[in-house]
Amino acid sequence: MTDKDIVYTHVDGGVTAPKGYSASGVSVGIKPNSSKKDCALVVSNSPAAVAGVFTKNVIKAAPVYWDMSICEHGNAQAVFLNSGNANAATGDQGIEDCRSTAEAVAERLGFRSDDICIGSTGVIGVPLPMTLIRKGVKRCVNTLAADGNLDAATAIMTTDTVPKEMALSLKLESGIVRIGAMVKGSGMIAPDMATMLCVITTDGVIDSESLHKALKQAVDVSFNRMCVDNDMSTNDTVLCLANGESGVELGDNRDDYFVFVGALTELCQEMAKALVRDGEGATKFVEIQVSGALNDDEAKMIAKSIATSQLCKTAFFGNDANWGRFACAAGYAGVDFSPDALDIWLGDLQLLDKGKPTGYHEADAAELMKETDLIIKVSVGDGPGEAIFWTSDLSQEYVSINADYRS
Amino acid sequence: MTDKDIVYTHVDGGVTAPKGYSASGVSVGIKPNSSKKDCALVVSNSPAAVAGVFTKNVIKAAPVYWDMSICEHGNAQAVFLNSGNANAATGDQGIEDCRSTAEAVAERLGFRSDDICIGSTGVIGVPLPMTLIRKGVKRCVNTLAADGNLDAATAIMTTDTVPKEMALSLKLESGIVRIGAMVKGSGMIAPDMATMLCVITTDGVIDSESLHKALKQAVDVSFNRMCVDNDMSTNDTVLCLANGESGVELGDNRDDYFVFVGALTELCQEMAKALVRDGEGATKFVEIQVSGALNDDEAKMIAKSIATSQLCKTAFFGNDANWGRFACAAGYAGVDFSPDALDIWLGDLQLLDKGKPTGYHEADAAELMKETDLIIKVSVGDGPGEAIFWTSDLSQEYVSINADYRS
Repeated sequence: MTDKDIVYTHVDGGVTAPKGYSASGVSVGIKPNSSKKDCALVVSNSPAAVAGVFTKNVIKAAPVYWDMSICEHGNAQAVFLNSGNANAATGDQGIEDCRSTAEAVAERLGFRSDDICIGSTGVIGVPLPMTLIRKGVKRCVNTLAADGNLDAATAIMTTDTVPKEMALSLKLESGIVRIGAMVKGSGMIAPDMATMLCVITTDGVIDSESLHKALKQAVDVSFNRMCVDNDMSTNDTVLCLANGESGVELGDNRDDYFVFVGALTELCQEMAKALVRDGEGATKFVEIQVSGALNDDEAKMIAKSIATSQLCKTAFFGNDANWGRFACAAGYAGVDFSPDALDIWLGDLQLLDKGKPTGYHEADAAELMKETDLIIKVSVGDGPGEAIFWTSDLSQEYVSINADYRS
Repeated sequence: MTDKDIVYTHVDGGVTAPKGYSASGVSVGIKPNSSKKDCALVVSNSPAAVAGVFTKNVIKAAPVYWDMSICEHGNAQAVFLNSGNANAATGDQGIEDCRSTAEAVAERLGFRSDDICIGSTGVIGVPLPMTLIRKGVKRCVNTLAADGNLDAATAIMTTDTVPKEMALSLKLESGIVRIGAMVKGSGMIAPDMATMLCVITTDGVIDSESLHKALKQAVDVSFNRMCVDNDMSTNDTVLCLANGESGVELGDNRDDYFVFVGALTELCQEMAKALVRDGEGATKFVEIQVSGALNDDEAKMIAKSIATSQLCKTAFFGNDANWGRFACAAGYAGVDFSPDALDIWLGDLQLLDKGKPTGYHEADAAELMKETDLIIKVSVGDGPGEAIFWTSDLSQEYVSINADYRS
């Protein structure tokens, strides 16, 4: 699926861009000493198919268990999210609090509580402040609006510096389908998901099984290909609701399904890149492109190894075209390749040719490194395997943010 | 082997503490704009058995290949080392430069060039400055002394802030054996070795095969159990020379062999801890103790995951008893365990009991976190598996050091 095959345009409206969705975001004081928004609600007018992709951490936050069970039965009509408290490592009480939250939302909206997904992000190990949460539910329901998308996207932010949302409109054979999304991330962003919550909405007609397949495919080459730090959160959740209000069928194996998957992938990739750009303390956005590996998996291992290396990331921060560190990180990726086959480029400037420095001018490389957006290309042979990974640099600011997060 | 079984005392003299060794360290200007020592030599009066453990990076520096080949034939009589240039990613020229260096040393000492081990550390991808190296060889040979150990330990430093050396004297059944060592590390310190060079000397009588077995065993629970960052260098090398001048037999399967292995392990562990303490930007030394895993390997995976987590390391730096991050890192270690079995202690203060906060006082934890030396104990069940890992915190200073390393 190339870009040419996908006929879509960017539109405004985030999660409420697709037909039949409303959203809201309010502040009830969950974040200590802050008037920042901390509760968000996304609602579909009609019952929707739902699919989710979740953290692989063996320690999962209560809302992850809650949502996994909802995605199993495959239907949902609303997502309530809070920031400021992750409801993680909260034991049975945590699950009970998810249930109470869902019941509160369901009651006010006239839905079933097992049609309400929950997302939480923030501090681990502190019980959810249920009085505030109930207040949040009430006020979110009361302020639901077709243009509440930005409020919702703002309310899920933690150390994010900007709200992140996006929407696409797809012109398909049988009509127009829209996909909208909001995401939060910033720290604890790791390969195989991140401290991230992402809610995606669409008005396409699709069953939950096909939706799950599409979502998994999109997430694998987007949110699972990025890192800020290497920490995989207990709360990572990507949810996708499809309410069918466009009337356009996207069922598996139709041409339109594949166009949908392509657009969903593009949307997830754009959101993933936005997460990396807004990574804690990030001053650079770096795309690592690896080619020539035996297969895509091995290419991904090499790309990830460079993307997650503290030394590579500090070199990015320091505007240092330190290909020695890139080569070194490639070398310990756990993939066997010949050092004599290693080529490394910084953008279009080749630094290493078949394992040896090209004699490029350090001043040229230094100039290129000053860019905010960097592309590091690494080739390890003539195999067909390739992969892309997105990462940020590692700055003193990252350390400051994370050393002080709770205090 | 418990401490009680090992009858050894710490002695002065580093690599020259064992009988029949001399050493030196000089400055010839390999480090740009610096008068710091940059060449070191360790020499045995008589031919010695030699064993080595090397980086697992597929990209190995030239001196690593050189030393691997020497360790294969099992005999050596000297080790020449330089800092300021890693002789890595230098192609055939790099190997040629190793050979020339070894020949220069051999010629001046009257040895064979294939009895000369080489160690290099510093910037990658720049050919070894052979004129300076030859000058270094000459001056090192001319200044060899029985008390040259500290000069040698100083000359191999890069971003290390203190020279690191140590020696033990073992009282065995049939006599006294000494083991001495010097090490450099500081950055690029990763599990499975590090940017480190370590030279160990002993006057025990032992064949190279038994020596290799002993060294591998010691390294596995010392240098392979530490991290500063997660980067595995192209140059990691631990060499051990045994010249037999004590006359005390340590051959495999003797009781004395096991005492020797115990002492060698202790020495390597002390040196590994010294490396972590002197890690780039490190303000804390943290021991991660994991128990209750299915087996030692799984315990090691969990310990390593916590030890290498950027978020845990910034929490250490920020004096934040953020057990949520420790639990989270344990959870994504790739080991299956029940979250409800997870206990976490900070020193003797239990923070998490069977997956839930103990209700400890945050002020008590904060007080404990202010210590320079921290112990984090994690239990994941009632299995027999346990492991220890040493790590440092992640500070703004680390970022500054590594962003500016080349510039």
